[in-house]
Amino acid sequence: MANADGFVLHPRLAADTLPLRELALCSLRLMNDANYPWLLLVPRVSDARELHHLTQPDQAMLWRETMLASRALEVTCTPHKLNVGALGNLVPQLHVHIVARFENDPAWPGPVWGAAPPSPYEPAAAAELVAELTATLDAVSD
Amino acid sequence: MANADGFVLHPRLAADTLPLRELALCSLRLMNDANYPWLLLVPRVSDARELHHLTQPDQAMLWRETMLASRALEVTCTPHKLNVGALGNLVPQLHVHIVARFENDPAWPGPVWGAAPPSPYEPAAAAELVAELTATLDAVSD
Repeated sequence: MANADGFVLHPRLAADTLPLRELALCSLRLMNDANYPWLLLVPRVSDARELHHLTQPDQAMLWRETMLASRALEVTCTPHKLNVGALGNLVPQLHVHIVARFENDPAWPGPVWGAAPPSPYEPAAAAELVAELTATLDAVSD
Repeated sequence: MANADGFVLHPRLAADTLPLRELALCSLRLMNDANYPWLLLVPRVSDARELHHLTQPDQAMLWRETMLASRALEVTCTPHKLNVGALGNLVPQLHVHIVARFENDPAWPGPVWGAAPPSPYEPAAAAELVAELTATLDAVSD
């Protein structure tokens, strides 16, 4: 459903992710891929395509929410490294990836995009990770 | 050479890039790879590894310089899409990639990291692109 701005989540992003939390600017979603703990931030701004095309206040809020998601992923998963990126070569709707990387994950040390085929979570595992991330988001929020 | 903070550019980043400009926080460098117009921002902060570990003022400045580099690359190269990312799986020193992507580039639509082998610029081509980017940076600076 569209919001007041006409924003509708891209169907590919909707299909690939599970809802986690609606933040001030972005939909925070969990990529449905058990290969990596992987969050997605999608600003609810219609037709946004590049980071630097956002308004200054939206840029500041997107950064803030990216840092929040980074902290939550670090605390929940204690990864070896975080990968943060906005690519959008395949899905034009602006979205930011925050991926927890481990030295034994299927793409290490390469990037996750286009690497291993997605491995959807078992429902119980998805529910558990969503609950953990939600609790951590509350704990690390400013 | 180390700065007052003890920062030294990682030798791998030094070897892979050409200097473009010293900004307030970051060294802005051009990846020496003619496959893609590709900028690198390296905050001159020793031991920085994750974006969210930077101080708040450094985070704000890094964002500002990332947007500046994005605008300069967009104006100079008119790419189909920008890819912006901080990965650091291979080189632990914090650095941000800003890559101008084209639908006929060697990695499209995949990510550039780990895709085609780097193709170093001819000296004249490097000098020309550095001059163009430098002029654009002046024009698009706030």
